[in-house]
Amino acid sequence: MTTSALPIDHSGLEMIPMVDCLNRLRSARMGRLAFFSDGYPMILPINHGMDGDSIVFRTAQGSKLAAAENEMPVAYEIDGTDVDRRAGWSVLVRGEARTVDNPGEVDRLNRLGVWPFADAVERTHWVRISTSEITGRKIVLRR
Amino acid sequence: MTTSALPIDHSGLEMIPMVDCLNRLRSARMGRLAFFSDGYPMILPINHGMDGDSIVFRTAQGSKLAAAENEMPVAYEIDGTDVDRRAGWSVLVRGEARTVDNPGEVDRLNRLGVWPFADAVERTHWVRISTSEITGRKIVLRR
Repeated sequence: MTTSALPIDHSGLEMIPMVDCLNRLRSARMGRLAFFSDGYPMILPINHGMDGDSIVFRTAQGSKLAAAENEMPVAYEIDGTDVDRRAGWSVLVRGEARTVDNPGEVDRLNRLGVWPFADAVERTHWVRISTSEITGRKIVLRR
Repeated sequence: MTTSALPIDHSGLEMIPMVDCLNRLRSARMGRLAFFSDGYPMILPINHGMDGDSIVFRTAQGSKLAAAENEMPVAYEIDGTDVDRRAGWSVLVRGEARTVDNPGEVDRLNRLGVWPFADAVERTHWVRISTSEITGRKIVLRR
C-alpha cells in the first residue's frame, strides 16, 4: 500500500509543491546545469544562489558562459538521495540562461554571498536562469 | 599554494583518470541523465548499473525511453560534494542512448541487480548509454 497526500505523476512519483521546490533550491548549495554544447547535451555541477525566485551563478569563460551569451534553453537540477531507504527527491528548473551585464545588478549579486567551491580560476561573470518552469518529484515510500 | 599530481583543466579543476572515473561509476547508485525533450534540455535522476564499461538503466514509457528509441545523444553525470571542505568531484559520460531489445541481453541485464528506488511503476525497458566520452574533474583543495 502506498499513501500520499500529494498528487502522483505518471511515473508514480509524488509532485512536490512549488513553494517547497523553491525552499529546497534556497537550501541547496549546488546543483547541475544541463545545456547544449555544440549540439550535444552537457551537464556540469555548479554552486548557485537564489535572487528572488531565479537561480544565479558565477562562471568564467567557457561553455556555460557561451550558453548564457546565446540565451540558450537550460535545465537545472538539485536532488537528494537516501540510499538506505531507497528514497530520493529532485527539483527541476527549466528556463533560459542569460548573462547579467547591468553593473547595479552585478553589484547586488556580488553581495549575495555566492562563492563557487571551485575557486582556482576567478569566476567574474554572473548568469541568471530565468525560470519558466519549476517542478519537483519525490519517491513515494511504501508503508 | 595549490599542489596536485593530476593534470589541471582550463577551470583549474583536476582531471580524474579514466580508470578512477569508471570505478566511481561502478560505486555510484544514482546519477542524472540529460537529453533533449521537445528541443529543450531535460535532466532526470536515475538509478544506473554498469555492464562492462557502459551504463545501463531500467525505464518505463516516457521521455527517457523516447530519447533512447530515437538514439539521441545524452549526457550522464554523477558527483559528490563535501560542503564543509567546499570540495567536490563529478564524472561526465557523453554518448548515445539506445534501447536494449535483444532478449538474451535483456535476460543478462535483468540479473545485474539494478533496481530503481522509484518502483511504484514497473520499469520493464532497458536502456544502454554507449559511452563515447568519459571525463572526470575534481576541485583542487588549497593546502
